[in-house]
Amino acid sequence: MRDPGPSDTVVYLDHAATTPMVPAAVEMMTRHLLDVGNPSSIHASGRRARRIVEESRETIAQALGCRPGEVVFTSGGTEADNLAVKGIHWSRQSADARRRRILTTAIEHHAVLDPLMWLAEVGSAEVELLPVDGEGRLDLDALRASVERDPASVSMVSVMWANNEVGTVQPVEEVVAIAAPHGIPVHTDAIQAIGTLPVDFAASGTDALSLTAHKLGGPYGVGALVVRREVDVVALVHGGGQERDIRSGTIDTPAIAGFATAVELAVKEQAERAAHVGALRDDLVRRVLAVVPDAHLHGAALDPLGVHRLPGNAHLGFPGCEGDSLLMLLDARGIECSTGSACSAGVPQPSHVLLAMGCTEEAARHSLRFSLGHTTTAADVDALVEAVVPCVERARAAKRS
Amino acid sequence: MRDPGPSDTVVYLDHAATTPMVPAAVEMMTRHLLDVGNPSSIHASGRRARRIVEESRETIAQALGCRPGEVVFTSGGTEADNLAVKGIHWSRQSADARRRRILTTAIEHHAVLDPLMWLAEVGSAEVELLPVDGEGRLDLDALRASVERDPASVSMVSVMWANNEVGTVQPVEEVVAIAAPHGIPVHTDAIQAIGTLPVDFAASGTDALSLTAHKLGGPYGVGALVVRREVDVVALVHGGGQERDIRSGTIDTPAIAGFATAVELAVKEQAERAAHVGALRDDLVRRVLAVVPDAHLHGAALDPLGVHRLPGNAHLGFPGCEGDSLLMLLDARGIECSTGSACSAGVPQPSHVLLAMGCTEEAARHSLRFSLGHTTTAADVDALVEAVVPCVERARAAKRS
Repeated sequence: MRDPGPSDTVVYLDHAATTPMVPAAVEMMTRHLLDVGNPSSIHASGRRARRIVEESRETIAQALGCRPGEVVFTSGGTEADNLAVKGIHWSRQSADARRRRILTTAIEHHAVLDPLMWLAEVGSAEVELLPVDGEGRLDLDALRASVERDPASVSMVSVMWANNEVGTVQPVEEVVAIAAPHGIPVHTDAIQAIGTLPVDFAASGTDALSLTAHKLGGPYGVGALVVRREVDVVALVHGGGQERDIRSGTIDTPAIAGFATAVELAVKEQAERAAHVGALRDDLVRRVLAVVPDAHLHGAALDPLGVHRLPGNAHLGFPGCEGDSLLMLLDARGIECSTGSACSAGVPQPSHVLLAMGCTEEAARHSLRFSLGHTTTAADVDALVEAVVPCVERARAAKRS
Repeated sequence: MRDPGPSDTVVYLDHAATTPMVPAAVEMMTRHLLDVGNPSSIHASGRRARRIVEESRETIAQALGCRPGEVVFTSGGTEADNLAVKGIHWSRQSADARRRRILTTAIEHHAVLDPLMWLAEVGSAEVELLPVDGEGRLDLDALRASVERDPASVSMVSVMWANNEVGTVQPVEEVVAIAAPHGIPVHTDAIQAIGTLPVDFAASGTDALSLTAHKLGGPYGVGALVVRREVDVVALVHGGGQERDIRSGTIDTPAIAGFATAVELAVKEQAERAAHVGALRDDLVRRVLAVVPDAHLHGAALDPLGVHRLPGNAHLGFPGCEGDSLLMLLDARGIECSTGSACSAGVPQPSHVLLAMGCTEEAARHSLRFSLGHTTTAADVDALVEAVVPCVERARAAKRS
C-alpha cells in the first residue's frame, strides 16, 4: 500500500465520490471566511451576510430553473435526501393516515434507502423497492402497477435522476407522468446529475430535488433541497426557524457563496464539460475493453449525447478479480477509483445496485467504478490503460492463490 | 439605517451570535479546501483525508476531555442538539415505552426547545420546562422533585451549560448528581461555554454535549455531539453510515480541520481570553450603568472568575426603550449587538428566557445583549459608552411619540 503523501501525480478517477473544488468557488468561499455577522442578525454585518446568502440562492435558482424561495439549504446531499423523504412522508401521512406506501427504486443511494428503511422499521411507512432492468433503469410498468393498485395509499415516490454507481439516467419525466395525476409528490436525488446533465426543476415536474456542492465543484458541508412551496415538509432539524422553518441552524454564508459559484459555473459549462468528459470516458472504456477483452461495461451503453448514461461514468466488471484487490493494486500505481459508492465503501458487501440489475454476487464483487470529472485529462486515461493489464493479472493471480 | 458596506469600523458586540474565525483556523481550513478525496474512499487520497479527520477528532477529544470515539461530527450546534434530544429520547423510549418524560429548563436555546416541542406535538414525549430563578439559574429542587416523582418515566434531561442570552451558568454537575443515580442520561448544550468556560466532558458526568465551531473561532457549518459510547442514539440523518452510523453524510474534511484548530486554541487560551474579555465586559457594564442610571443588568451578577456568568455576556435593560429601535440606532453608529438569540431575531416576540426569569413583557422588550469576544478591544467599549446615551434618548423619544 502506497503511503498517503502529496497527491501531485495521482490519477483521480473517483469524481463521483467527490470532485475537486473549482478555483472560482474556492476564491468566493475564502473571500467570505473572515466576514463577521450571522445572516440571522439584524445589524449591518448580519444584513450583509444575509444579502450574500440571498444572492447565492437566486444564482442557484436561476441555474436550476426554480424560484429562489424553493431552495432550502442543507448540510449536503444526505441531509437533503433525508429531509425530502422523511419530511414529505411525515407531512403527507399526518394529512391522511392512509398514505403509508413510499415507492422507490432498488438502486437508490443509501441516503434515500436508509431513511426509508428506518421509516419502515419504526412502523411509519411501507417501502416498495421497484425493480430495474439489466442496465439499471426503473421498470415503469412496475411503478404504474404499484401506484394504480391503490393510489390513495401512496405517500410519495422517490426516484434518482441518475444512478451514482453505474450512471444510468432514470425516466424521471415518466415517473412524474404516472404520479402527478394522483397528486402524489415525486422527489428526485439529482446529486450526480446537476452540472453533468441538463436539469430544469420546473420543467421536470418533480416536487423536490436534492443536490450537493462537493459533487459539482463546490465545498463539502453544503447542499440543498429544492422543494416546491406548495409541498409541506416536516423539519428534520428544529430550532431558530431558518430556511422557511424547514431547516434550522446557523446559515453557512461562505460555503453557500462557494456553492452558488460552483452551481452557476457547472450549469453554464454543462454541455461543454459533458462532451469533454464523455469523450474521455468513451476512450477509457473502449481501450480498457480492448486490453482486457473479457472485461465488460455495466449499465447503459455508451451514449455520446449523455441521454441514458452519466458522461463521466465507466463501471466495469473484471471477471476473476476481487474488486477491492484490483482497487488497491491500481491505487499502488497512483490510480484512484472506487468499488461503488464511497459512502458504503469499507463495508465488504456487494453493491445493491449491481444485484438489483441482475448481477451475480461474484460479478458484483469483481467490478470497479471509474468516474471522470472536470480535471480529468487524456493522460489520466492513458495511465489507466497502461496500468490495468498488469493489475488485473495480479488481482487474478491473488484470487486464484 | 446604515447601508451595509465594508465593516472596517464596526464595533462588533455580537460574538454570542457568531464570532470571527481565528487566523489559524482560516489557514488550516483553506489549506485543505483543494484537497481531493472523500474520507470514506479507500484509495490514498481518501485515506489522507480520513487521517486529517481522525487527527482533528483526537485534537478535539483532547481539548474537551473525552475519547476520540465519542466525538460525532455534525453540521453545527442546532443539528447536534436535535440529534441529542431526539436521538437519545427515541432510543430510550424504544428500550422502555414508559420513558415518556423529558425534563429541561424554560430557558434552553430554540435548538433544544423546538425539537422537544415537536416530540411533544407528535405525541412521542411529555416535555417539562423547569423553572429558573431571577438570575436565570435552574431550580434544582424543581428538577429533583420532578425526577423523584417517577424516575422510571424520565427519558432524559437536557440542561444547557450556560445560557446564550443572559449568560447564566447552569448547575450541570448538580443536575447529573440528581439524574445519574436513576440511570437517566443528561445532555448539555455547551455551545456558548466551550472556549469561554473550563469544560471537561468526562469530569462533567454528562452523557452528551453539543458544541459548534463558529462560536469559538472556527468555521460555520460544522459542530459536534460528544456522546458517551454507552449511550444509544437513533440517527437523525441516515445514509452511508459515517460517524458511528449516528450521522451519515460526506465528512467535511476542511471544516473539521479548521474546527479542531479553533477548539484547540480556544481551550488552550480559555483562561486568558476569559480574563481579558471579562475585564472589558465588567468595564462596559459599569460604565453603561453609570451613564444610563436606570439601566439594569439581567442575569447573574458580575463575577470576576466567570463561575456564574459567561465572561463575555452583558445583557442590559433600558426602561422606556424598544430593544429593536435601540439596536437599530446603535447600528446606525456602527455598533452591533442583539435583542436576544440571533436565531430568533426578526421574530418580534419577547425573549422566552427573560420571561422565564420573571421579567415583564415590557422589560423583556427593552433589553439588549452585548456579547464580547476574542477581537473585542477597550476602544469598542469606549465607542458603546459614548453612543449609548444619545441612542437611549432617541429610542425613548421614539417610543413616547
